[in-house]
Amino acid sequence: MDDRSDDHDIEVEGGGGLHAYDRKISGILDDGSVGFQQPLLARNRKNTTSQMAIVGANTCPIESLDYEIFENDLFKQDWRSRRKIEILQYTILKWALAFLIGLATGLVGFLNNLAVENIAGFKLLLTGNLMLKEKYFQAFFAFAGCNLILATAAASLCAFIAPAAAGSGIPEVKAYLNGIDAYSILAPSTLFVKIFGSIFGVAAGFVVGKEGPMVHTGACIANLLGQGGSKRYRLTWKWLRFFKNDRDRRDLITCGAAAGVAAAFRAPVGGVLFALEEAASWWRSALLWRTFFTTAVVAVVLRTLIELCRSGKCGLFGKGGLIMFDVNSGPVLYSTPDLLAVVFLGVVGGVLGSLYNYLVDKVLRTYALINERGPGFKVMLVMAVSILSSCCAFGLPWISQCTPCPIGSEGKCPSVGRSGIYKSFQCPPNHYNDLSSLLLNTNDDAIRSLFTSRSENEFQISTLAIFFVFVYCLGIITYGIAIPSGLFIPVILAGASYGRLVGRLLGPVSQLDVGLFSLLGAASFLGGTMRMTVSLCVILLELTNNLLMLPLVMLVLLISKTVADCFNKGVYDQIVTMKGLPYMEDHAEPYMRNLVAKDVVAGPLLSFSRVEKVGVIWQALKMTSHNGFPVIDEPPFTQASELCGLALRSHLLVLLQGKRFSKQKTTFGSQILRSCKARDFAKAGLGKGLKIEDLVLSDEEMEMYVDLHPITNTSPYTVLETLSLAKAAILFRQLGLRHLCVVPKTPGRPPIVGILTRHDFMPEHVLGLYPHIDPLK
Amino acid sequence: MDDRSDDHDIEVEGGGGLHAYDRKISGILDDGSVGFQQPLLARNRKNTTSQMAIVGANTCPIESLDYEIFENDLFKQDWRSRRKIEILQYTILKWALAFLIGLATGLVGFLNNLAVENIAGFKLLLTGNLMLKEKYFQAFFAFAGCNLILATAAASLCAFIAPAAAGSGIPEVKAYLNGIDAYSILAPSTLFVKIFGSIFGVAAGFVVGKEGPMVHTGACIANLLGQGGSKRYRLTWKWLRFFKNDRDRRDLITCGAAAGVAAAFRAPVGGVLFALEEAASWWRSALLWRTFFTTAVVAVVLRTLIELCRSGKCGLFGKGGLIMFDVNSGPVLYSTPDLLAVVFLGVVGGVLGSLYNYLVDKVLRTYALINERGPGFKVMLVMAVSILSSCCAFGLPWISQCTPCPIGSEGKCPSVGRSGIYKSFQCPPNHYNDLSSLLLNTNDDAIRSLFTSRSENEFQISTLAIFFVFVYCLGIITYGIAIPSGLFIPVILAGASYGRLVGRLLGPVSQLDVGLFSLLGAASFLGGTMRMTVSLCVILLELTNNLLMLPLVMLVLLISKTVADCFNKGVYDQIVTMKGLPYMEDHAEPYMRNLVAKDVVAGPLLSFSRVEKVGVIWQALKMTSHNGFPVIDEPPFTQASELCGLALRSHLLVLLQGKRFSKQKTTFGSQILRSCKARDFAKAGLGKGLKIEDLVLSDEEMEMYVDLHPITNTSPYTVLETLSLAKAAILFRQLGLRHLCVVPKTPGRPPIVGILTRHDFMPEHVLGLYPHIDPLK
Repeated sequence: MDDRSDDHDIEVEGGGGLHAYDRKISGILDDGSVGFQQPLLARNRKNTTSQMAIVGANTCPIESLDYEIFENDLFKQDWRSRRKIEILQYTILKWALAFLIGLATGLVGFLNNLAVENIAGFKLLLTGNLMLKEKYFQAFFAFAGCNLILATAAASLCAFIAPAAAGSGIPEVKAYLNGIDAYSILAPSTLFVKIFGSIFGVAAGFVVGKEGPMVHTGACIANLLGQGGSKRYRLTWKWLRFFKNDRDRRDLITCGAAAGVAAAFRAPVGGVLFALEEAASWWRSALLWRTFFTTAVVAVVLRTLIELCRSGKCGLFGKGGLIMFDVNSGPVLYSTPDLLAVVFLGVVGGVLGSLYNYLVDKVLRTYALINERGPGFKVMLVMAVSILSSCCAFGLPWISQCTPCPIGSEGKCPSVGRSGIYKSFQCPPNHYNDLSSLLLNTNDDAIRSLFTSRSENEFQISTLAIFFVFVYCLGIITYGIAIPSGLFIPVILAGASYGRLVGRLLGPVSQLDVGLFSLLGAASFLGGTMRMTVSLCVILLELTNNLLMLPLVMLVLLISKTVADCFNKGVYDQIVTMKGLPYMEDHAEPYMRNLVAKDVVAGPLLSFSRVEKVGVIWQALKMTSHNGFPVIDEPPFTQASELCGLALRSHLLVLLQGKRFSKQKTTFGSQILRSCKARDFAKAGLGKGLKIEDLVLSDEEMEMYVDLHPITNTSPYTVLETLSLAKAAILFRQLGLRHLCVVPKTPGRPPIVGILTRHDFMPEHVLGLYPHIDPLK
Repeated sequence: MDDRSDDHDIEVEGGGGLHAYDRKISGILDDGSVGFQQPLLARNRKNTTSQMAIVGANTCPIESLDYEIFENDLFKQDWRSRRKIEILQYTILKWALAFLIGLATGLVGFLNNLAVENIAGFKLLLTGNLMLKEKYFQAFFAFAGCNLILATAAASLCAFIAPAAAGSGIPEVKAYLNGIDAYSILAPSTLFVKIFGSIFGVAAGFVVGKEGPMVHTGACIANLLGQGGSKRYRLTWKWLRFFKNDRDRRDLITCGAAAGVAAAFRAPVGGVLFALEEAASWWRSALLWRTFFTTAVVAVVLRTLIELCRSGKCGLFGKGGLIMFDVNSGPVLYSTPDLLAVVFLGVVGGVLGSLYNYLVDKVLRTYALINERGPGFKVMLVMAVSILSSCCAFGLPWISQCTPCPIGSEGKCPSVGRSGIYKSFQCPPNHYNDLSSLLLNTNDDAIRSLFTSRSENEFQISTLAIFFVFVYCLGIITYGIAIPSGLFIPVILAGASYGRLVGRLLGPVSQLDVGLFSLLGAASFLGGTMRMTVSLCVILLELTNNLLMLPLVMLVLLISKTVADCFNKGVYDQIVTMKGLPYMEDHAEPYMRNLVAKDVVAGPLLSFSRVEKVGVIWQALKMTSHNGFPVIDEPPFTQASELCGLALRSHLLVLLQGKRFSKQKTTFGSQILRSCKARDFAKAGLGKGLKIEDLVLSDEEMEMYVDLHPITNTSPYTVLETLSLAKAAILFRQLGLRHLCVVPKTPGRPPIVGILTRHDFMPEHVLGLYPHIDPLK
C-alpha cells in the first residue's frame, strides 16, 4: 500500500471536523503535474486552522451524503421488476410521513409552549407575589434560583447527553440539506435534549428563542421517521425500505425544517418559504407541495390544541405563548418623512444587525475555548450567564422611574398575575414600572408589549434604551453557551425595542405608529442578521396578521439586508463556516475558472478490477477510509482497459459479507444478481451500517474472487480532466453528487484520472494547493 | 455533404414547431448500432403529428436557449481583465433593471385597469341608462355593439400584428424560462398587442382575465429592457452589454413574470411565489431576492397611483379595478360538518377543474383548425364568440325573477351608476335583478359581489346555478380565440359561483359564511385547473387580506389538486404540450433508465479541426442549421486526435465576418485574441444576429485558414456514451445546457460520438426510435 493519503471522501472515522481538511492537504496529484513544498503547506495549514476554530458540538466526524441515483445492476433489476403496488405504497408513504412529521412537530411545538408558559409563569408569579409583599431579597433569590436550576438542567442535558443539541440547529440542518451529515446531529438523543433543553432554557429566562430549536426538532423528527424503524418491527421496515437512501431522507428533512418554523411562528406559508430560502439547497416543485402539506398539518394541529386550551385546562397557558402579535395600525398612509424614517431605520438596523453577527462570531470563538475543556466547564459557563441574566433582569428595573397609571385603566393597572404590561414591581399603588414589564416577563410577552400601539407613552424613552442595550448585549453573550438557543427571539426583541425607540425619538417627524415602528425595527434586525427576505416578510405577515404594512416591511428588509451584506455574511452561513462544515455554495468561486479538474484531483491510487480478489478488496477497505472505488474493466473481459464504474464502500462490505465468491477469475455477476436484492444494499440507518471489523473472512476466502459488476454504478457522472473547476463544481453541486469521476482526455492512459469529492472544491483545499492564486480573479 | 439530417439543435430556420421533430426522426445513429425501418418511422410520425396539433400563434420557429457559461479563450480573457468597476456596474444595473421592470409593469398594470374600468364603465352606464328608459332593444344593440367593436379591435391587433400575443402567455413564458425561445414571443410588437388587446378584450365583456396577459407583459418588458437597446444609444449599449446572454435575460424575465402577477393581483409575495412555483425552471436564492424587490416596486407604484386616483381624477376608476376582495368572515371556527363540506367542495372542485382542462384542450384543438386558415377567420371567430357572449349576458337575466330590495338598503337598491350589486335591469322600482348584477358588470366586480358575505340571500340559488353554467361554458369556449386572454378570472368566477352555490345548498348543514364558501370554491377551481398550491394560497391571502381562513384554503387547494392530478395535467402544462414546445421536465422519464446516451444521439457528421479552412466552415454553416460544432485538436498540433471543445454558429459567423484568416495552417489564436473582445461575440438582440447570407467571402478567402481556438468552449460538459439517458437528461436539465457532448468510452475512436440537444430527450423522439419500449418501465 502506498502511504500517500488520498481521501476519496471527507468521511473520517474519528477525530475532529478539521481533520478532514488536514489530511487532504498532504495529498499528491497522481499525474505528478503539480508538486508543492512542505513549507507552503505548513503555512497554509496554519491559516486553515485559525480560520476554522471549532465550536462546541462539532468535534465529530462528518460524512457526505449522496443524492445521486446509484444505477448499478441491482438497482436496474429492482427498477424493472417494480410493481405498481410498490409505486403506490411509496406515494402513500411519502404523504403519510409528511403528515406524521406535521403532526409530531405541531404537538411538540404546542407542548414546548405549554411547558414554557407554565414553568416561566409559575416562576414569575412567585417573584411577583414576593415583590408585592416587599420581600425584595427573597424575590430575587427565588427568581435567580429558579433560573439557575432550569439553566443547569438544560446545560447538563446538553453537555452530557447530546452536545450536538446546543445552539440554534439551523446551521446544521442547512448543512445537512447541503449534503453534510455531521455525526449525531439528527440522532434521537439530540431530539430529546433539544426538546427539553429548549423548554428549560427558555423558561430559565435566557434571551434565547425556541424557533431555531424547533427547526432542528422538526428535522430530527423527520429523520427519525425516515430511518426505517427498528428491525424488530418487520412491517414498518418493509414499507420504509423506500426511504433508505439520502435522496428521500433529504426531502423528509426539508419538510421537517419547514414544519419547525411553522410550529414556532404559527406561520405555515412562512415555514415553506423559510425551508426554501434558507434551509434547502435542492428544491423542486413536487417538494414544495409536500412541504406545504406538512406545514398545513402543523397549523391545523396547533389551532385545534389552542382551541382546546381556551377552556382553561392548560394551567397558565393563556392567549400568550404561540406568538400572534396584534399590531393595530389601521390603514397606513405614508408621507415623505415617514419613508425617510423607515429608510433610516433600515440602514441603522442593517449596520447593527451585521455588528450583531460580528460579535456573535467573536463570542462563539471565545466560548469554544471554554467549552472544549469538558462538559463541566460548559455547565459552569451556562450557570455564569444565567446568574448574570438574572441580576440584570432583576436589577435594571430599579433604575427606572415609576410611572403613574394612565387614566381610565382601572383594574388593569398595576397588572395582577403574570401577564399584563403594567407591572408594579417596587412602585407604589397606582404606579407601574415599565422596564420590569419588559424584563420580568417571557420573551413572547415582551415582544407583544413592544408591538402594541395602544398608548403611545406606555414606555419611557430611557426604558426602551436600557432594554435595547440589555437585550442586544445579553443576546450576543447567550448564544453559544451549551443550551439549545434560537436566534430569532433575541433579534426580534432587540429590533423591536430599537424600532420603538426610534419611533419615539422620531415621533415629532413621522406619523407612523410606534407599534409599526417596532415591527419595522424587528424586520430591519432580522434582515441585518439572517439576510432572508421573502420568508421573513411572510413570517412577519403571518405573525401580525396585517397585510397593509407589507410594502414597508419589504422596504426595510431589502435595505437592511443590502447594508448588512456590505459587511459580512448572514449569521447562519457564518456559523456553518465556523463549524468547519464543507458547505457547497450554488455558484463557483471566481478563481475556479482558472483551474481545471485535474489541478485539484488526487489520483485514485486504488481501483478494482471488475473481477477482483477478495483479499485485495478487504485490504483496501481496511487501509483507507475511501467511500468510492473506481472499477475498471480489464482484459481479458474487454479489449482494452476501460472504466466500468464506481463501487461504494458500503456495498462492497455487504457483498463481502454475503460471501458470494468464486475460485476462478470469471464473471458471475448474473448469479449474484439472482441471489441478491437491491434492498440488502440500501443505506442503513444511523450508525447501523456494516463496518470492516464486522467481516470475518477465512484465508481461503481471501484468495477467492468476487464479481463487482452487480454493485458497480455503471453510470457515474464523469468530467474530462480539462473541464474547468468552476464547471465541475457547478455540476457537483447541482446534481448533489458525492463522487465525480475525472476521466483522461488523451488516449493511452488509465481510464480514470481521479475522483473529485466535496472537499476538493472547498476554498481551503484549492487555495491551499495554489496559494498564489488571487481568490477574487 | 451527407444528406442524412442530424440536427444538433432544434432551431429551424422556417416552418412549424412540428417540423423540428419530424426532421430528426430520419436521423441515423453514427455508429450504426441501431437501424430502424421506414414503416415504423412513418407510423410514429403520424402519432406525433396527431399528438401535437398546433394552436394558433406558434407556427413559428423555436430556438433553444443556452444557460451554460461558454468558457472560451475570449471569455477567459475578458474574465481575467475584468475590473472592479465593471462588477459594480453589473450589480448596479441588475438592480436598476429589476427596479425598471417593476416600475414599468406597475404602470402598465395600472393603466390597463384604468382603461378597462373607463371603457367598460362607459359601456355599462350607457346600457344601464337605456334600460332605465325601458329602451330594451336599443340597450341590447348598444351593449352588443360596443362589445363587438372592442372585440374586433382586439382580434385585429392580434391576428394581423402579433399572433403570438393571443392566449394567456403564461405557457410561453414558462417555456421560455425552461429554455425554449419561440420566435417573437417576447418581441416589442407582442408587448404592444398584449397590452392593448388585453384592454379591449377585457372591456369587451369576454369571460377572460388580464392576469395571464399581465404576466406575459411583464416578461416582454423585461426582455425589452434586457435586449441591450439600440446601437444608436451608445451609452445604453455599453452598460447593457452584460446582459447579452441567455442567463442574465432569464433572470430578468423571471423578475418580469413575477412583476406581472404582482401587478395583476396586487400580490407581491404571491408574484414571487408564482414565478417560483409555476413559471421558473431554474432558481437560486439571489434571484429570489431580486424578484422580491421587483414585486415590491410594483406594489409601491400601484399603491401610489391608486392613492392619486382617490381624488376622483381617474374617471370611472374607483375603488374597483385592481382586485382587493373583502371577505368578512370574522374568527373562523369549524365544526365537523363544516370540514366535510369543505372536503366535498374540494373534491368536486378538483373534478370540475380537470374537466375544465380537458374541455379547454378540446376547444383549442378545434379552434386551431379554424385559426390556421388565416387572420380573417381568426377575427370572425372572435366576433362570433363576442356576439354569443353579448346575447347570453343580456338574455339570461330575463329568466331571473326580480327580487325585492332588502329592507334597510334605501339609496343603495336599486344601484345607480355602474357599480353596485343591486342592478334593476327590467325590474320595477324597489326591485333588483340579481343575475344582471353578475352578468352586466366587469368580471372584477362580479367576483367581488360573489365574495361578499353581507347578506346571505342576495343571490338566488337559480341565479348562481345559471351564472355558474354560463361562466364555466363561456370561459372554455373563449380561451383560444385570437385575443389576449387570461385564465385566472374565468376560473375564479366559475369557482366562486360554484362555491357560493354549494354554500347556499349546504346552508342548513354548515355554519360557514357563503362568502367564505365562495372563496373556497374559487380556490378549489384554481387548484383543479392550474395545480399550483403555495402561490395560489398566498395570492388568495393577499387578495382577501384575511389570514384566518388560511388553513381552509390550504385544505381545499390540496384536495382539489390531488383529485385533479388523477385525471390530467395542469392547464399550462397541457397548453405547452399542445403547442409542441419541447419542455424539459425536471425529472427523467422512467424508460430513460433503460437507454444510454449513445442510443439516442445522432453522430456529428460535421466537426472542425482546430485550424480549419474557411471554405469548409462556410459550407457547413450554409448546408446545415446546426448551432454547435465540435472542434477537434488534430495532429500535428497534438499527438493524437482529441476533443478541443465546442464552437457556436453565432461565434463562427462573427469570426468569419472579422476575416482574421491566415494563409498557412498554423495556430494564431493569440493574435485573434489580441484583436477581439468577448463583447463582439455576445448574443445579439432579438433577430439582430448575423446570418450566413450576410457574409461576403472571396474565393481567395475561402481557401485560407482560421484558428477556432479563441471561440471554442474548451470546457463543454461531456458524458460517456454509456451513461444512462436518465442521468444525461437530468444533467442537461439541471445545468440548463443546449449542447451536451457525448464522448466514446473505448479508445481508438474519434474523440466525440455526438451531441445531445434538448430534442434528443423528448419522449416523441426517444419513443419514436424505440417504439417497443414500455414508457412506464
